Amino acid sequence: MEKIRVAIFGASGYAGEELLRILTRHPMCEIVAITSRKNAGEPISKVFPRFTNSNLTFVAPDVESLKGKCDAAILALPHGTATEFAIPLLNAGIKVFDISADFRLRSTAKYEEYYKVPHPAPELLKKAVYGLPERYREELKTADLVACAGCYPTSSILPTSVLLKAGLVKPTNIAIVSCSGVTGAGRKVDLPYIFPECNENIRAYGVVGHRHLPEIEQELAVAAGVESVTINFIPHLAPFNRGINSTILLDAAEGCTLEKVEQAFLDAYGNEEFIRILPAKRTSEVKYVAMTNVCEIGFNYDPHTNKVILTSCIDNLTKGASGQAVQCMNIRFGLPENMGLI
Amino acid sequence: MEKIRVAIFGASGYAGEELLRILTRHPMCEIVAITSRKNAGEPISKVFPRFTNSNLTFVAPDVESLKGKCDAAILALPHGTATEFAIPLLNAGIKVFDISADFRLRSTAKYEEYYKVPHPAPELLKKAVYGLPERYREELKTADLVACAGCYPTSSILPTSVLLKAGLVKPTNIAIVSCSGVTGAGRKVDLPYIFPECNENIRAYGVVGHRHLPEIEQELAVAAGVESVTINFIPHLAPFNRGINSTILLDAAEGCTLEKVEQAFLDAYGNEEFIRILPAKRTSEVKYVAMTNVCEIGFNYDPHTNKVILTSCIDNLTKGASGQAVQCMNIRFGLPENMGLI
Amino acid sequence: MEKIRVAIFGASGYAGEELLRILTRHPMCEIVAITSRKNAGEPISKVFPRFTNSNLTFVAPDVESLKGKCDAAILALPHGTATEFAIPLLNAGIKVFDISADFRLRSTAKYEEYYKVPHPAPELLKKAVYGLPERYREELKTADLVACAGCYPTSSILPTSVLLKAGLVKPTNIAIVSCSGVTGAGRKVDLPYIFPECNENIRAYGVVGHRHLPEIEQELAVAAGVESVTINFIPHLAPFNRGINSTILLDAAEGCTLEKVEQAFLDAYGNEEFIRILPAKRTSEVKYVAMTNVCEIGFNYDPHTNKVILTSCIDNLTKGASGQAVQCMNIRFGLPENMGLI
Amino acid sequence: MEKIRVAIFGASGYAGEELLRILTRHPMCEIVAITSRKNAGEPISKVFPRFTNSNLTFVAPDVESLKGKCDAAILALPHGTATEFAIPLLNAGIKVFDISADFRLRSTAKYEEYYKVPHPAPELLKKAVYGLPERYREELKTADLVACAGCYPTSSILPTSVLLKAGLVKPTNIAIVSCSGVTGAGRKVDLPYIFPECNENIRAYGVVGHRHLPEIEQELAVAAGVESVTINFIPHLAPFNRGINSTILLDAAEGCTLEKVEQAFLDAYGNEEFIRILPAKRTSEVKYVAMTNVCEIGFNYDPHTNKVILTSCIDNLTKGASGQAVQCMNIRFGLPENMGLI
Repeated sequence: MEKIRVAIFGASGYAGEELLRILTRHPMCEIVAITSRKNAGEPISKVFPRFTNSNLTFVAPDVESLKGKCDAAILALPHGTATEFAIPLLNAGIKVFDISADFRLRSTAKYEEYYKVPHPAPELLKKAVYGLPERYREELKTADLVACAGCYPTSSILPTSVLLKAGLVKPTNIAIVSCSGVTGAGRKVDLPYIFPECNENIRAYGVVGHRHLPEIEQELAVAAGVESVTINFIPHLAPFNRGINSTILLDAAEGCTLEKVEQAFLDAYGNEEFIRILPAKRTSEVKYVAMTNVCEIGFNYDPHTNKVILTSCIDNLTKGASGQAVQCMNIRFGLPENMGLI
Repeated sequence: MEKIRVAIFGASGYAGEELLRILTRHPMCEIVAITSRKNAGEPISKVFPRFTNSNLTFVAPDVESLKGKCDAAILALPHGTATEFAIPLLNAGIKVFDISADFRLRSTAKYEEYYKVPHPAPELLKKAVYGLPERYREELKTADLVACAGCYPTSSILPTSVLLKAGLVKPTNIAIVSCSGVTGAGRKVDLPYIFPECNENIRAYGVVGHRHLPEIEQELAVAAGVESVTINFIPHLAPFNRGINSTILLDAAEGCTLEKVEQAFLDAYGNEEFIRILPAKRTSEVKYVAMTNVCEIGFNYDPHTNKVILTSCIDNLTKGASGQAVQCMNIRFGLPENMGLI
Repeated sequence: MEKIRVAIFGASGYAGEELLRILTRHPMCEIVAITSRKNAGEPISKVFPRFTNSNLTFVAPDVESLKGKCDAAILALPHGTATEFAIPLLNAGIKVFDISADFRLRSTAKYEEYYKVPHPAPELLKKAVYGLPERYREELKTADLVACAGCYPTSSILPTSVLLKAGLVKPTNIAIVSCSGVTGAGRKVDLPYIFPECNENIRAYGVVGHRHLPEIEQELAVAAGVESVTINFIPHLAPFNRGINSTILLDAAEGCTLEKVEQAFLDAYGNEEFIRILPAKRTSEVKYVAMTNVCEIGFNYDPHTNKVILTSCIDNLTKGASGQAVQCMNIRFGLPENMGLI
Repeated sequence: MEKIRVAIFGASGYAGEELLRILTRHPMCEIVAITSRKNAGEPISKVFPRFTNSNLTFVAPDVESLKGKCDAAILALPHGTATEFAIPLLNAGIKVFDISADFRLRSTAKYEEYYKVPHPAPELLKKAVYGLPERYREELKTADLVACAGCYPTSSILPTSVLLKAGLVKPTNIAIVSCSGVTGAGRKVDLPYIFPECNENIRAYGVVGHRHLPEIEQELAVAAGVESVTINFIPHLAPFNRGINSTILLDAAEGCTLEKVEQAFLDAYGNEEFIRILPAKRTSEVKYVAMTNVCEIGFNYDPHTNKVILTSCIDNLTKGASGQAVQCMNIRFGLPENMGLI
């Protein structure tokens, strides 16, 4: 079998660094190009000293030159920019795995509401498959364009969708409170992200109308089998590098028990390599998923308020971005799903 | 005016260390005794090297020897133990400021439900004044026994009670999600609290039935003017030393607006030195309250779900424990409320 | 007695924030102006949300407007810029306390060697008193221009100078290895200082020719009573907010013993409020000096290599910058040296 | 080819956890036993929740039961205890890879001087090969007993030995100043290691007579071709989880230049997969080696003092312990040296 020839677009951020870390160990991938407008012409070690021994060099993004030499492109670009490259890449017969938010929302109206601009390629939204393998594995096997699930959405949707689908919780009054490490903000050089501003601190942000909100609502509605759901999603910035914990409060449906919740998770994810269901009443911890592609899920029931309380942890750069993209790519190209990811 | 002669009981933990830091700078306090069973006979510098230049020495707790030589005792003892000393101290005419949870609940039944033992001195519960100056200032002026508010409760009750009292939010479906630094667990030598287990991690704990839950419910019911309220309170352990952030989701009552919420906070706390009301839509940050006695409050309104979302930060060792005890003591002894605390 | 009227120049960095924290509590200071070119016109709370309740507003720096209304100016400006203001301030009869490096070196040649530009005001170098109260207290009492000691130099000179002066160590082969928290880099918005780049990391930098090197060498030569000393100074950036630890290796002179070292420290600093001499063989810790104006010094002797090994910790923003400036100012204006600093 | 059957003795600490992380991904290893006296009978997930999906169970250490079923034993035991198991394991024909310090010193006198007890098995010291592949690869190919190099020694010896051997630096007046993350102290439940005591802190410890000192001196003497060398080694505890940085000051020998230093490193390590030589004047960073088996080396020359200054970073749990043990094991069993380690 031949190796997949992969190009990484926008490789100079943290998701790009994580892609490089994963793909340089992936036995069936060959990196054919890493692009960066800003760093074109520079050796990779200039941007990421950890790769000093690699001889990769950044090039300016150029789809033309990849024709016939590339099977898959992973886009770690800012939203908006991803679309610009997705179109010519697809036209060149290259499979596209987009880590940005450009193709995640099925509704162009929602996209415009949250991103304040019209969607640049509405016709592609229909083509795109949502890149969350545990929910869309079959569709991913033949997808040309994969809209990899976002970090907060992955940690939120994986546990919540199971209970909604099983009818064990109500599709109303859902509250998701998440804490993310600082790599979640990207490799952004801005005052709020310098060390002394983040360290010994925690703060909520984007408490109303965060851009990941419609993505979570969209997928929870699918799981619940309803037209739409309306939730509260409240992210926090916490002083660690990698990882997200989401704590999720759900109104129990009639007849819900801790045992049924456990059974629903085992039924849904008992055979999933990248999902770890904790014993009842335990809570997930970021440290047990950092640098892995695993989502760790804990569940509890509060009889006092009749709520199911879920906790869910992922590494935002791995399962929440680059690892998930590789998992999707493995599925698409018929490779073992965990290749390069363990 | 004569100085207040203060004894600190249980001075070898983090709340004790913070009391020592505050009281050694307090111009109207004289520390007459610091007690520790474990460290009796040892100079303070053995336990807290930062006080190497002090000549205080730990003594075994002994109320008898304090008679006539002490005006106030601050108890930084484990729950259960505090009661043991409170009784003889009160009998000796010494004012008691208890940082433990022993006297915070008015209901002995609730105490027994959450602490699994009968309350050791039910008659004292009636005497005790809840040590949250911004809510109980008048009562504190004449209190003999002060049950200082807990750390999570302080960060939760201060903002929420205002809106409940003003009728701007409903006393149902309240969710409080908090993140505390590791000093919140005390100076506890236990595997989950060693550095590599806490660092680069975050986790929920006590998601059902945390001991601070009934204390918060009790005070929110008072504020709402109802018999009882039932809430979800979900604490997290986060990787920093000092501070708590509480993010609070509340169902807006009819007619609630962001402007009314702001006005309610200004009416309630506009003149409070230790409460900082942020401009609308901003969120509180732990770093702006660490090492201070301030509670910083942010507020927002989500029209999408008709929720009021509050954020509230304190330093768990200062406003959440030792600073609040000193604030209460200042009130009780007629001193400026901020003495030693700025 | 009247309050000292103080202007803070360049108040928008971390040293400025620390000055504001100290001076707003200082009972004998009145802040008459805080300047910032970038933030002129903005309320202080815009730059430092912790001062939301203050009504100070940044103004553009303007010496003319301060004439007759200001007794002291503390300059927390970048090097080079400080000189620009020092001259007119001195001409206006205002005492100047400069936290920058502009006036620390007595040799203009050394200045030019390390800063790559000629010194802008060589005549002022003679006027300037080195702002390290424990070494230059008498001179500070009448100084018009104080060149406050740098952070690394303070942590290095305070312990080392004592042993050099006592002849207990040799003035050759001195190695100083320091670790600083990230506020030491200032409030600088640059990729190497964002949280994920500093967190879970440590690195040496400036290992050859760091700008604090000639300042340390100058003062150690004074202490040793020799023309010049040549040392190695190797700073590291470590993942905490505040503090410096310096570990210093010194060749013991003949006859040196641990007892003599201890005695030399007690003789030199036994009465110093802001120096904490640890018992022999203990090592200093950053956490015991953070948020204080204290320098903590530990000493040890290695018979194996005949070296004296010192450790020394300060808070880089307090004793290493703003606290020291206030200590110098207190001395200059005849106030208790610790005012506002405990 | 058959898989190597590996037993891990003392698997419940951080080195054990790292061994498990590595070996569960190693394509040619089968874990046949994990031992722990304290946790015997418990599933691995009880001790390390990250391995919740594994079905390994701790057993009490029992060499007898491993006979014929085990090819290699990796000992992650406290010093002293390792010897106890090494003897029967070797007798049972099992290769032993010891991560403890028991077999690292060739001199029983040195062992006794630093460990305060006679060596329990002096005859084995002659058999043991020092487990630092880049220096002892040939010897490791046939070793029955490997004394894996310690963490501080690995970071110190790898760079320094090259320059000593090349005669570019003098074997006298060597100073090694290291900073280690807190996992370096093991999974130890003790007050100095709880989060609030380590966080926002740094401190030197063991500044005289640390137990890794004779190990470093032994290997540097070998490299320099001299009877013995006498050095200063000063470790610090720094607030991160994983990694060591060593900064090394060396007196340049006559004729030493930066170019010769670079050439010496390229000659020695140009083909080493796990050593990364930085360009001249750059400094190593812990973050670039964390979670890898790499040693990153930087070098510089200070003409001012005629010193060569090296910096060297490793992950203390990987290259400094478990990764190195696996690297040695791969060599011993004829596997690719990097198997399981990239």
